[in-house]
Amino acid sequence: MIDHATAPTTELLLENFKKTRAHTASLCEPLKVEDYSVQPVEFVSPPKWHLAHSTWFLEQFVLNQYKEDFKVFDKDFAYLFNSYYNNMGERVLRPNRGNMTRPSVEEVYEYRNFVTEQVVRMIEQQPSEEVMKIIEIGIHHEQQHQELLAYDIKYILGNQPTFPSYENNFGLEEIELTNKYVSIEEGIYEIGHKGEGFAFDNEFGRHKVYLHPFIIRKELVTNAEYLEFMDDGGYENFNLWHADGWEWINSEEIKSPMYWHKKNGKWHNYDYTGLKELNPKLPVSHISFYEAYAFAEWKGMRLPTEFEWEVASNKLQWGQLWEWTNSAYLPYPNFKTAEGALGEYNGKFMVNQMVLRGSAVSTPEGHSRYTYRNFFQPELRWLFSGIRLAR
Amino acid sequence: MIDHATAPTTELLLENFKKTRAHTASLCEPLKVEDYSVQPVEFVSPPKWHLAHSTWFLEQFVLNQYKEDFKVFDKDFAYLFNSYYNNMGERVLRPNRGNMTRPSVEEVYEYRNFVTEQVVRMIEQQPSEEVMKIIEIGIHHEQQHQELLAYDIKYILGNQPTFPSYENNFGLEEIELTNKYVSIEEGIYEIGHKGEGFAFDNEFGRHKVYLHPFIIRKELVTNAEYLEFMDDGGYENFNLWHADGWEWINSEEIKSPMYWHKKNGKWHNYDYTGLKELNPKLPVSHISFYEAYAFAEWKGMRLPTEFEWEVASNKLQWGQLWEWTNSAYLPYPNFKTAEGALGEYNGKFMVNQMVLRGSAVSTPEGHSRYTYRNFFQPELRWLFSGIRLAR
Amino acid sequence: MIDHATAPTTELLLENFKKTRAHTASLCEPLKVEDYSVQPVEFVSPPKWHLAHSTWFLEQFVLNQYKEDFKVFDKDFAYLFNSYYNNMGERVLRPNRGNMTRPSVEEVYEYRNFVTEQVVRMIEQQPSEEVMKIIEIGIHHEQQHQELLAYDIKYILGNQPTFPSYENNFGLEEIELTNKYVSIEEGIYEIGHKGEGFAFDNEFGRHKVYLHPFIIRKELVTNAEYLEFMDDGGYENFNLWHADGWEWINSEEIKSPMYWHKKNGKWHNYDYTGLKELNPKLPVSHISFYEAYAFAEWKGMRLPTEFEWEVASNKLQWGQLWEWTNSAYLPYPNFKTAEGALGEYNGKFMVNQMVLRGSAVSTPEGHSRYTYRNFFQPELRWLFSGIRLAR
Amino acid sequence: MIDHATAPTTELLLENFKKTRAHTASLCEPLKVEDYSVQPVEFVSPPKWHLAHSTWFLEQFVLNQYKEDFKVFDKDFAYLFNSYYNNMGERVLRPNRGNMTRPSVEEVYEYRNFVTEQVVRMIEQQPSEEVMKIIEIGIHHEQQHQELLAYDIKYILGNQPTFPSYENNFGLEEIELTNKYVSIEEGIYEIGHKGEGFAFDNEFGRHKVYLHPFIIRKELVTNAEYLEFMDDGGYENFNLWHADGWEWINSEEIKSPMYWHKKNGKWHNYDYTGLKELNPKLPVSHISFYEAYAFAEWKGMRLPTEFEWEVASNKLQWGQLWEWTNSAYLPYPNFKTAEGALGEYNGKFMVNQMVLRGSAVSTPEGHSRYTYRNFFQPELRWLFSGIRLAR
Repeated sequence: MIDHATAPTTELLLENFKKTRAHTASLCEPLKVEDYSVQPVEFVSPPKWHLAHSTWFLEQFVLNQYKEDFKVFDKDFAYLFNSYYNNMGERVLRPNRGNMTRPSVEEVYEYRNFVTEQVVRMIEQQPSEEVMKIIEIGIHHEQQHQELLAYDIKYILGNQPTFPSYENNFGLEEIELTNKYVSIEEGIYEIGHKGEGFAFDNEFGRHKVYLHPFIIRKELVTNAEYLEFMDDGGYENFNLWHADGWEWINSEEIKSPMYWHKKNGKWHNYDYTGLKELNPKLPVSHISFYEAYAFAEWKGMRLPTEFEWEVASNKLQWGQLWEWTNSAYLPYPNFKTAEGALGEYNGKFMVNQMVLRGSAVSTPEGHSRYTYRNFFQPELRWLFSGIRLAR
Repeated sequence: MIDHATAPTTELLLENFKKTRAHTASLCEPLKVEDYSVQPVEFVSPPKWHLAHSTWFLEQFVLNQYKEDFKVFDKDFAYLFNSYYNNMGERVLRPNRGNMTRPSVEEVYEYRNFVTEQVVRMIEQQPSEEVMKIIEIGIHHEQQHQELLAYDIKYILGNQPTFPSYENNFGLEEIELTNKYVSIEEGIYEIGHKGEGFAFDNEFGRHKVYLHPFIIRKELVTNAEYLEFMDDGGYENFNLWHADGWEWINSEEIKSPMYWHKKNGKWHNYDYTGLKELNPKLPVSHISFYEAYAFAEWKGMRLPTEFEWEVASNKLQWGQLWEWTNSAYLPYPNFKTAEGALGEYNGKFMVNQMVLRGSAVSTPEGHSRYTYRNFFQPELRWLFSGIRLAR
Repeated sequence: MIDHATAPTTELLLENFKKTRAHTASLCEPLKVEDYSVQPVEFVSPPKWHLAHSTWFLEQFVLNQYKEDFKVFDKDFAYLFNSYYNNMGERVLRPNRGNMTRPSVEEVYEYRNFVTEQVVRMIEQQPSEEVMKIIEIGIHHEQQHQELLAYDIKYILGNQPTFPSYENNFGLEEIELTNKYVSIEEGIYEIGHKGEGFAFDNEFGRHKVYLHPFIIRKELVTNAEYLEFMDDGGYENFNLWHADGWEWINSEEIKSPMYWHKKNGKWHNYDYTGLKELNPKLPVSHISFYEAYAFAEWKGMRLPTEFEWEVASNKLQWGQLWEWTNSAYLPYPNFKTAEGALGEYNGKFMVNQMVLRGSAVSTPEGHSRYTYRNFFQPELRWLFSGIRLAR
Repeated sequence: MIDHATAPTTELLLENFKKTRAHTASLCEPLKVEDYSVQPVEFVSPPKWHLAHSTWFLEQFVLNQYKEDFKVFDKDFAYLFNSYYNNMGERVLRPNRGNMTRPSVEEVYEYRNFVTEQVVRMIEQQPSEEVMKIIEIGIHHEQQHQELLAYDIKYILGNQPTFPSYENNFGLEEIELTNKYVSIEEGIYEIGHKGEGFAFDNEFGRHKVYLHPFIIRKELVTNAEYLEFMDDGGYENFNLWHADGWEWINSEEIKSPMYWHKKNGKWHNYDYTGLKELNPKLPVSHISFYEAYAFAEWKGMRLPTEFEWEVASNKLQWGQLWEWTNSAYLPYPNFKTAEGALGEYNGKFMVNQMVLRGSAVSTPEGHSRYTYRNFFQPELRWLFSGIRLAR
């Protein structure tokens, strides 16, 4: 999950740590107590769970391992707030997270404060490099959960019959479409993380790939373009879809991106602030890999591979939405699973998922890299995902 | 759903109404905000939902129909808090009740106060007999939800990994077992509601049944007796079970009553106040019809029919737990569905359910009658149910 | 499952036995080998399975128990062709019956001949009364499977896209509708089997019931009447349906009786000989209890109870279709489960099913009695079921 | 799906066509009529269906398009025996294939003979190159179904409780384990089909890939080695598994390869001829991608990518079992979907599947190429699959 040449300085680490902990809480600040505990579908976790889990991670991997005479805040919490670390023992199964009404939100915030304070003190005492690296992982881990929090909060509120406002738009920027393409030449390119900054284990193993010539569009696909696809019967034409995608849109009765609602004959979408008329200039968002693929087919184009994306990235306008690639999530050559529980982090998900590249408005500051490999199942779309075309 | 000769006096109605409304709130008083919104299984409703639904019922059937110039508290609430009255339009489907984080608990209490106040004022103005009868139904309807609240709160808290205490035991009384039986003679008996008090539509149509001689035990079955059944392999002997019951205990891996947990080799159960060692003298509770039937088979006895129970009831000690009978829930001769939306109340459930008679510690005061017909699917056991033997 | 005062004579038994065995084979005679092994839905069994199971029953309960030095035909067959007799050991689970391609149809016929011959020889040697009674049960058991064979063959062929003909209509008679009613007076009536003939255990325990006055129609409901119900929106009006029935027609998208198909704007139905235009004068058939109930509600009538039906039966025209009653399948007073494996026969199904009375064109000769209690789950309709109205 | 520079000569085509058609029939020859129609799980098709579908393919794409005045054998067959060609209209859904008892096996053979004869005549009349190419596709298509037939027949018979013999072993060869590795150097390699022979569309788009140095074992993994993995708790150690794989083995209760049965304390497996004691020297077969991956993890090795496999293939002993690679099934650069219905052939499956390389004893003669890309979902294992190790 980790590794870089040098650990950050304690000053920087302390600042990052405090900022990250504070940011998680500020994301939840507009919520009502009732919004914290609910799990409307299995892939969404209750905000309370994120608050507690990111705290448990620090308690488990930092305090419990490296702090002398440390006593856990509550011995039940490991069971309640472990996510998938089988090596760390029994845990509440994912579909039951929404049934945990206790501990209360208030108690979870006490837990957060307790752990934050202990870790801060630890950093101030100049811990070993090993400890500092693990705290840094804890920061990045919490940033990942900040992003999931953004998705989950949107899902929870956007599926209320009353479409309440969260007063935090994570607003997308309008695109003035030029339809210009970047052109990349054939050749050998280097892929993967380089240098001394932080990166996850799945980005390491920098290696060579051979790319054939391709072009890739500078701008993401817009709502206006996606509406054309819909108006042209895109969701009814099986020739555009993967067999699995076709089955999925039919069994789930999918006819538009997530959060789109037709009201009085006009398309609206929910954007955290309520149900608004669709803005055709915004990039289309909350679409699945299957939809991205079908759209590209319809355009006579294709999605880029993750390698093409990485090579072209410095010439693209990116950072608004995660961009589906046509690459399956697989290990780089020389990928190595870390020893111990942290080794469960990435490798075990390297099947049945597709890679997304870039970052999104929901991505926390400092958590974005052009080598970052995000990954999700091809039917998921509650994430901030968009479409980039290539050929 | 109703009918009796005379409506109650306005004084009595006002007192009952206020008491009932206050009691519902007092039942929820020990809860944390987080406990109000959760729906851990489909048959459990969130406490918030009960609070709002019993209020919506009054708003819909009393205020909206009979109060001049009445404006509903919030026009979305009919959609959110209707339960199954198809005649009243669209509604949130049962499995999604736990996903409604909005309106908040606070807003629901405001809604309650608003409607309570309006109805109180209406009663004070001496409404017509028709209106008073419907308010009375509203009271009885709310009492039914008080009982469901008791079940649902127990389920929600009793399924927390931490077994929190609710500080309200609905305590059962110990039984000093004498094993005495009441004997009833063969003959024609009258069944069903009689007189002027309130009753539900399913109790009306007083009629004759012919009963053959039978005996029925004075005391309910105790935990001690049920443990004997378990120790004798009751859950492993298919000869004791209905085919459907056998399939149910096997697919659900049922090996004991609900809320029983084996800990350090000893049986404990959750009783609202935490996990306690099993008291062998208490009546066995939270069992399904299938289990009640299998237990009776094992004893060489049977469950009484609902008619036998009603005829013998004045000689029995009842009121601790609802008692499963071997009667399917079917209409009495001359049963008539009421006109309009209230007609949906009972008749449409008269298939695939078994009748329970008596009442339980969870039954609100004034809601208990020897003619009362409770009914549930044979596999349910989150209700306060027990076993009475007959032959 | 049994009992009567005297066993039949050996001559009569021999004749009945041979006739019954031959009739089962003749029912299958029009089938192709491919039709024998298929199980298109769980509640249908492959014809081969019926042929083998009714044979296994005789081998297991007659030959194996009472014939000296008997060696079973094939020791695997008990496992393959046991239906639900848990007391008789492991068995192939119901949903997997259609996957058994071996033994072949030919081998199953050899098995049949082997067992038939052995039992015939046994009867010829004048066995004890006990043995004769069990052989008689075997005959009645096989007759029940003959009726199921009729249902299952119709289902298998009627669900082929090509609607092949079976050349055996089990033809229903047209009804010239008079709409006349039989009127029965209030009073005590005796219910249940009487006399010396054969009956199943669930008919015994003759007992008294008190009936209130009622009327019951002489003729079954016709296709023409049922079409009126459909044209009047019967399948769209939830006020007519049980809650469970409403859920069922919606989740299964039921809009007409089984085997009805609209073709070129006209209703057709499959009747073993192919897809034919609907005959409005025939009794409506292949309907569920839910549909029968909804139809009666729409008519302002109700279904009779099984007791009303039995009392009125000698004044009705019955025998065309099994008639749904509004009685749940429950034990009569003094019902006793027989000892041993045959005791599994009826009692364990006495929950979640509704009683049908009468008999149908698919009922084998000699298998019809006015006290006969047939029973099925309320959503099933591949049986030959119809509607009788009462009030 | 196709393309090569020159079509085969008519002599060669005729010979191949006849041989292929005859081979399909010979594969089914040992079956009983009952074995032809059954579909025990969704991914298995009835042998009758393969016989008819491979015939329908020729009728639809050759005769119907290119033969003047051609009249189809039976107009219902397109509906019955289309597999997934949405462009060719409505079809019987996959899970219902086992319910089609009609047409009979005999009729399907008549259909085969009819179409074979017509195509033979067409070839003899020296058709255009276009037609010859499509017939060639028809041959390769039928060969693919021959391989599926081998899997499906094994599944059907191997899941009979009686383990019947098919008298056709597709016998695997014993491995004398040397544990030797081939070593490949870093560099740019060419991947994909080259030359004039037949290949599927997914093999075209010959292109360059950059490979890092790796070693790959000459021999497949043996049963003996796999038993070591099992004895070492391989199925109980989640660290070895993908998260999806771990969930799969737990929900399906997988504890050994398919067709393995423990009997009297010893492992046996079903190999078409009956249940036999496990031969430790045979390559382990019928394992899923998840199991292959977990085994490699346990060994401290990994699976090769499909590119590594192709580059090393001429130095390996292959052809016994399809070999799971760690490559997801994705399009090659410049992959193009063919126009029309044949374009549905491959591209739409390029998600959620893993590539297998090589061929197996079940692969028909002439259907094996070192560039051949086979693909299946990672949990499937009824195919003849094995494990090759790399690093």
